[in-house]
Amino acid sequence: MKNLDQYLIEKKLIVEKELQINIEKLNAPKELKDSMLYSLMAGGKRLRPVLLMLSFEAYKAHNQKVMSSISALEMIHTYSLIHDDLPAMDDDDFRRGKETNHKKFDEATAILAGDALLTYSFEIITDDDLLSDEEKVSIVKLLAKCSGPTGMVGGQIYDMQAEKEKVSLEKLEQIHEYKTGELIKFAIMTGAYLANAPKEEMDHLKNFAYYLGLIFQIQDDILDVTGDESKLGKPVGSDESNQKSTFPNLLGLKGAIKQKEIYIEKAKAELDKTTAKKDMLIKLMAYFGNRDH
Amino acid sequence: MKNLDQYLIEKKLIVEKELQINIEKLNAPKELKDSMLYSLMAGGKRLRPVLLMLSFEAYKAHNQKVMSSISALEMIHTYSLIHDDLPAMDDDDFRRGKETNHKKFDEATAILAGDALLTYSFEIITDDDLLSDEEKVSIVKLLAKCSGPTGMVGGQIYDMQAEKEKVSLEKLEQIHEYKTGELIKFAIMTGAYLANAPKEEMDHLKNFAYYLGLIFQIQDDILDVTGDESKLGKPVGSDESNQKSTFPNLLGLKGAIKQKEIYIEKAKAELDKTTAKKDMLIKLMAYFGNRDH
Repeated sequence: MKNLDQYLIEKKLIVEKELQINIEKLNAPKELKDSMLYSLMAGGKRLRPVLLMLSFEAYKAHNQKVMSSISALEMIHTYSLIHDDLPAMDDDDFRRGKETNHKKFDEATAILAGDALLTYSFEIITDDDLLSDEEKVSIVKLLAKCSGPTGMVGGQIYDMQAEKEKVSLEKLEQIHEYKTGELIKFAIMTGAYLANAPKEEMDHLKNFAYYLGLIFQIQDDILDVTGDESKLGKPVGSDESNQKSTFPNLLGLKGAIKQKEIYIEKAKAELDKTTAKKDMLIKLMAYFGNRDH
Repeated sequence: MKNLDQYLIEKKLIVEKELQINIEKLNAPKELKDSMLYSLMAGGKRLRPVLLMLSFEAYKAHNQKVMSSISALEMIHTYSLIHDDLPAMDDDDFRRGKETNHKKFDEATAILAGDALLTYSFEIITDDDLLSDEEKVSIVKLLAKCSGPTGMVGGQIYDMQAEKEKVSLEKLEQIHEYKTGELIKFAIMTGAYLANAPKEEMDHLKNFAYYLGLIFQIQDDILDVTGDESKLGKPVGSDESNQKSTFPNLLGLKGAIKQKEIYIEKAKAELDKTTAKKDMLIKLMAYFGNRDH
């Protein structure tokens, strides 16, 4: 059984090298490339690409077939952060202790860098010679669905609407399913798909990804109450002060911690219904649920 | 020989119906769909989708195979207008006489509506049962390249940079090749590709599209000097006042008109090297070069 920390560091380096190569080879305006690369390289745990690799490796030994998907996934995640941080959205000047893209460059460049990362992610998939046409189509389709109006972008809108009203637990789960859950679903399902996981296990993997997304989010909300600003790289208590719908605001801190345990049990139950190698996925799930930053 | 005006009206209705159907079927937040549909339906001549259909019909009778590509193309064009109009970019309150997206809704919604349209365009291609996997991959790849960092988005950055300095004719041509030419290239090449046009003609069609883009742009610049505000739906003279690099600013008005004729001759020469039915394409080119709005 491999050590998770070591695994995360190894994989993070693989992801970052791949991202760098993909931007460097672009024959695009230098300022645009600088701006795309700045946000791609502004830290982060690369959890989504790591999940994709983990899911692949739960069925098969690591190979190069996942590389374009992990790049595309991290580019989409990064574009969403760049647009999220804009003055018209969350208006954040710092992320992970670094200036946000529009502070480092300017707003116009940040909007375009986000657009460029989003568009480029689809190009990367279709340009990958290791994938068959059938695989390219499946991945592009799932990536577009998970990140578009019925996925992540739709979740952003639901989230904005929820800031104005108190929502139910069911609605809150739905918001997070769209906003962050869909990309986690993409990671788990694409890794398994590329590793030729049995088709009948896909629904269980999808459900596992759903609970994993909720575990990630509920811990995010809990950290906003209990976390250490210096570890998080962002101020705590901001959710409570702006009356945002969060798990602790809805269930209380103890209730939120209990709810997290329920999600963890449900996630495990789904994973148990598959033939996937479980050890690293379970470790990562525990890490999602217990992380302090 | 069909009448161009009648043809344009027919095709415009086909495009608009298809766009409407594609948005209505989305299971996405109502406000997001409203915002996407608002800009998609805010008028416009639908020239890019019409070009795609024309290019297809230059080799084959009209059929349903082009529908997903025309939708995707118009969605990408519309997303670029929404982001272009944002306060951080061109800061326009009106387009085609109607409020721009961020004025009608708000900035955050406009950013997300643009992101949603861009993402959804790739989903629409991969969801089209009339296309083979090979066709889907080719179209997604070309669409991503033409609209991403080495295409339209790259062109936006070059254009922003050119606002600060006087550029050469060669550089100006390059800016427009990226900024508007690439989507026109997508239209012409995808129409021909889906109609199984001979592979050896593709380069000529690509060159034709290149000149067509320049004709479109040079006429845009000329109209900014000589046009009628009520027909254009936007103020004239704005390019001159903000010292923007335009063909008339660079070559004088007479020089720009002469340059337009050069592009028209070159476009015709490229088209003559193909077996495409030319009549409607030539008519549309003349329309591009002589339009008053």
